Amino acid sequence: MNEYERLIKEFGAKEIDSSSSLDFKHFKNGILYAHRDFDLFLKDLKEGKKVAIASGANPSGPLHLGHVPVFETNLYFQKKYGLHVFIPISDDESYVARKIKTQEEGLKNSIELARDILAFGFDPKKTHFIIDQLNPEIYNFAFKLCRTITLSMVKATYGYTDETNVGLAFYPSVQAAHVLLPLLKEYGGHERTLVPIGIDEDPHLRLARDVAAKNRLTKPSVLLAKFMPGLDGEKMSASKPETAILLRDNPEVARKKIMKAFTGGRETVEEQRKKGGNPDVCVVYKYLKVLFDTDVREKCVKGEIICGECKNMLADKVEKFLNDFQNKLSKITEEDVKACLIKKNLSLS
Amino acid sequence: MNEYERLIKEFGAKEIDSSSSLDFKHFKNGILYAHRDFDLFLKDLKEGKKVAIASGANPSGPLHLGHVPVFETNLYFQKKYGLHVFIPISDDESYVARKIKTQEEGLKNSIELARDILAFGFDPKKTHFIIDQLNPEIYNFAFKLCRTITLSMVKATYGYTDETNVGLAFYPSVQAAHVLLPLLKEYGGHERTLVPIGIDEDPHLRLARDVAAKNRLTKPSVLLAKFMPGLDGEKMSASKPETAILLRDNPEVARKKIMKAFTGGRETVEEQRKKGGNPDVCVVYKYLKVLFDTDVREKCVKGEIICGECKNMLADKVEKFLNDFQNKLSKITEEDVKACLIKKNLSLS
Repeated sequence: MNEYERLIKEFGAKEIDSSSSLDFKHFKNGILYAHRDFDLFLKDLKEGKKVAIASGANPSGPLHLGHVPVFETNLYFQKKYGLHVFIPISDDESYVARKIKTQEEGLKNSIELARDILAFGFDPKKTHFIIDQLNPEIYNFAFKLCRTITLSMVKATYGYTDETNVGLAFYPSVQAAHVLLPLLKEYGGHERTLVPIGIDEDPHLRLARDVAAKNRLTKPSVLLAKFMPGLDGEKMSASKPETAILLRDNPEVARKKIMKAFTGGRETVEEQRKKGGNPDVCVVYKYLKVLFDTDVREKCVKGEIICGECKNMLADKVEKFLNDFQNKLSKITEEDVKACLIKKNLSLS
Repeated sequence: MNEYERLIKEFGAKEIDSSSSLDFKHFKNGILYAHRDFDLFLKDLKEGKKVAIASGANPSGPLHLGHVPVFETNLYFQKKYGLHVFIPISDDESYVARKIKTQEEGLKNSIELARDILAFGFDPKKTHFIIDQLNPEIYNFAFKLCRTITLSMVKATYGYTDETNVGLAFYPSVQAAHVLLPLLKEYGGHERTLVPIGIDEDPHLRLARDVAAKNRLTKPSVLLAKFMPGLDGEKMSASKPETAILLRDNPEVARKKIMKAFTGGRETVEEQRKKGGNPDVCVVYKYLKVLFDTDVREKCVKGEIICGECKNMLADKVEKFLNDFQNKLSKITEEDVKACLIKKNLSLS
């Protein structure tokens, strides 16, 4: 049983039936594969109730293409349904978990991450960042919630021990506050939030849903995204920069990384022309399909297109994507981010 | 070994030599009986270095006469040496420890407590309250410090278990932040703080001093005060209101409580006139001496004054004290408290 199946079989997530869901590419291509209470969210959405997206981001590393599907999901709901998107950025978590040395570094990383997110195309009028150090009022809400989280719970959920520091032990309360904040009257009074996340974040959401119930707040709905593979076919990680295309990579650097990517090709071009390639194991195939909605399966299995051509096609698309992104990023300032920080008595349109 | 001796023999506090210390009544009468690094604080003070008082208050119950010696100590340093007094009020602690039901209650209690403190005579220009819910930036500083406090440490210090909630486990970090805040540049940049407290608060300070050292901040100095006994001769507590005179008690109610107080008197007036009373066990004697600087020892042991007279003398003094206090309190508003809330980039004179 792999980790995707485990969330369904052992941890109560429900499979998404792509045929009966929304007309959105990441439902169809299987990246969004499981959910918690998404049906309830969809019902509220369709009945015109006030709902919002809450989707956290962690500033411990730079954004890469693996983050794109979740961001595109958030963006889809913002563009198609006009939803407000709340983006909590866990600056203090990366500090308490000792991923960084100082709080100042966490704050700086968070502002850069927020610039990236705005450059990704989010509407500043409908996007609200929560950065702990700039929005310390989040801690008051975390304190409101924390009485319902015991040390046992965080030990069981995260494997913490008595040698864990008290900040890390407390942080799940902040994370619950992050995703539940849009429910509060002074932050919009939404009836329900939807949290699209990678599956590695599911433990936070299981705990946040439990905290919500214990505090008589509506449990957040969750959409669970599969991981994009790294260029080497293994798990993508910003800590292996050669296997991940960073959104701030020079397009030429990105092209070189793509040229070394793991594919489903044969030993020789001749053999591939004759027998066809294997798209099911091919990273380039997956990137083209998931990120650029381009399906070369038929041509690949028939041997009508070979790996070099696919790599060039992907590199061209990535180049355009990165140029567009980086061009927008260059115009986004720290002040733009600060204008999007969440404020009390938020008036939403 | 009683708890006073234990702090000295087992927990490293040093005895105060009243003859060599400051000319202040609570050093002379023995209420301030032990310290940590008070000598270093006094040296800094006398050398004209920038030092401050930080003395926490807990809003879980009303103020009573037992709180007076510590407040008078703070006031002494403010009046005689012009020191700024920082008063952190642990509104969120009473909530996470489930002493109260809601955060709103904690906030309301804290504001009332701060009104009391201003009515006590503190100079609003040199008094700075820290109320967690109104000063959430304190949590950023608590997060800065929390990496150096493990769950083991708070379990050992406070007897917490895995069933303790994460807020209570985290709170010692907030308490350390409370007393270390005046050291930060944006809050005055003091070279050292002095924390006068009742001995029950010593565990917080031992932990805060440890945290200070680990974060390369100057350890706070501590003055440890003995408890005032309750009117029944046992430990005073706001939860036994008949044994404690509350600062908001009607003076007539206070008089009735005093009339029932435990004294060192004899079975009969005749016997007492002949053999004298025992001031060493007498609550009324202690209150007169500690709170009103009035020593009736000689008259008592000679049988020249009997318990009824002492009780009336005390009741008269308490009546005047309460009338003065409550008169001042009636003129202090929530706005007065808010004007004294600590602010970043504090300018001190």
